[in-house]
Amino acid sequence: MKHGGDLTDAIARHGGAAEEWLDLSTGINPWPWPILQHLPESAWQRLPSRADSEALLEVARNAYGAPGGVDIAVATGTQALIQWLPYLGASGPVAIVGPTYSEHALAWRNAGHPVVAIDHPGACPDSAVHAIVVNPNNPDGRVTDHAALARVAARLKERGGWLIVDEAFADVDPAVSAAALCADLPVLILRSFGKFYGLAGLRLGFAIGAPEIAARIATALGPWPVSGPALLIGAAALADQPWADRTRHELQQQARALDEVLVKAGFAIAGGTSLFRLARHPQALQLHAALARQHIWCRSFDWADDLLRLGLPPDDAGLHRLAAALSG
Amino acid sequence: MKHGGDLTDAIARHGGAAEEWLDLSTGINPWPWPILQHLPESAWQRLPSRADSEALLEVARNAYGAPGGVDIAVATGTQALIQWLPYLGASGPVAIVGPTYSEHALAWRNAGHPVVAIDHPGACPDSAVHAIVVNPNNPDGRVTDHAALARVAARLKERGGWLIVDEAFADVDPAVSAAALCADLPVLILRSFGKFYGLAGLRLGFAIGAPEIAARIATALGPWPVSGPALLIGAAALADQPWADRTRHELQQQARALDEVLVKAGFAIAGGTSLFRLARHPQALQLHAALARQHIWCRSFDWADDLLRLGLPPDDAGLHRLAAALSG
Repeated sequence: MKHGGDLTDAIARHGGAAEEWLDLSTGINPWPWPILQHLPESAWQRLPSRADSEALLEVARNAYGAPGGVDIAVATGTQALIQWLPYLGASGPVAIVGPTYSEHALAWRNAGHPVVAIDHPGACPDSAVHAIVVNPNNPDGRVTDHAALARVAARLKERGGWLIVDEAFADVDPAVSAAALCADLPVLILRSFGKFYGLAGLRLGFAIGAPEIAARIATALGPWPVSGPALLIGAAALADQPWADRTRHELQQQARALDEVLVKAGFAIAGGTSLFRLARHPQALQLHAALARQHIWCRSFDWADDLLRLGLPPDDAGLHRLAAALSG
Repeated sequence: MKHGGDLTDAIARHGGAAEEWLDLSTGINPWPWPILQHLPESAWQRLPSRADSEALLEVARNAYGAPGGVDIAVATGTQALIQWLPYLGASGPVAIVGPTYSEHALAWRNAGHPVVAIDHPGACPDSAVHAIVVNPNNPDGRVTDHAALARVAARLKERGGWLIVDEAFADVDPAVSAAALCADLPVLILRSFGKFYGLAGLRLGFAIGAPEIAARIATALGPWPVSGPALLIGAAALADQPWADRTRHELQQQARALDEVLVKAGFAIAGGTSLFRLARHPQALQLHAALARQHIWCRSFDWADDLLRLGLPPDDAGLHRLAAALSG
């Protein structure tokens, strides 16, 4: 399974209609920000205006704590940024702290750059021009502190390289964000809108970094990089601080409830964030298959046969269904 | 004015609220395909699935007449493809038939490739590795026939290059499309969804070409390149052949009505398609300014002081407002 969130393969192998499946294969919040019931028709019809784009960027800058003197660029999800970055930085090897989200390595390899897998930022070799840290990491939730990130970034600065910090899951704990480092170091922060706000289909993400890096990204992406609805919904959602605070709290509670079910079924919690849990079990792959036969989809990994990653069930019924399937 | 469709600058200079302006600066159909009143919430919330993506590509392949053995890739508008292409083809100069849509030259220059401006495809120099023809051309509507395109593509094939045919406005006359050439020649067709379907805010476009070219594009764009709503709305609209046939006919009628107003105001029709008209007048720039003062926005060009491009007014009131403003 290459990615979470796509039941196409699961359905092909195990049958059932999409709506019968309990999809726990992603880290997407199942309680989305309530989208505007009546988006103005002009959001679909007109080319997105510079005014709408600037309004979104201003709200995003505030929501993500971008410091003064630092710029922000918008894209159709952080995935679009991951695809572009290997073409925009200095040429040379990239060190990636892993195991982690596999698309980083894939994009750099596809663009012809050597990729070095490392297991912590301090292991970044002298040969690496760039480094990538997913923070908190996916799937284990490991958090790298700001001092460690700053040390790597300072070394990369001497080589003309970038430290890319993928904060796709940082919304659940804003203190994790290393955005403050961007003011003095070649740190590029990636922020995903869709996961925490539960609107992955909208395709919206951001890059925060020094003005020259953000400008290079914006130039590469060109005009109208995101849809009109994404500009409006993104601006409204990112300005909704009470919703974000409440959601952080509720996700924590739901993650604890999921942990209880997993522990009761014999798993040990190995990490995660409050948007997904990483759980260890000696029969993880058999359990993955057993859940799939019961049309419950979670994530397994080709680098570990004792780990599963599970997103939050959308309701109590889903949680009970998971518990029953695991005990069956 | 760099682009049509963005009133941000016009409003800054001439005042008024966006809804008071009559925006004729684009070639976007003002009578959009009726979007689904109730998009399923899952389109916003879930990651777009491969099944939805493949369904759209199948419909698009049919709507755009892609021949067998040729592939199609999807992007957030043809603009996203224009941004990527300079990074994906063989390195070297690109010849662009112009004057035309300025973003092609900009993207190739930004990526470090020399750009050669030519005034017809036959003038493509031996030094050019790639060539770009907008067909029908924007803003003059000039159509390049398939034989001329095939001759250029055959020459570029020997150099390992591509002929990029931007068919952003070809929906108004499907016979113009050179998609059939993709089967045997390194021709890459760009199709814009938003203009003819009047849904530019959706951000949806396609590239049609040989499997190895389409695959290179899809790999560069990565997973989930377009939004969930774009996948569903695009698939439904592109399958609606009766709407497309009716719209082609109605756009022709509206373009004729616009021509009458322009001719009555002393313009000579210099070209265009039924989504926009190019009109010549010795006082074109003064008329542009006079219209702007009356909050009517159209397009002028930095390479001609006697040409204006005008899109279709959305209703009779708009047409009469334009006529009155031109006679005032």
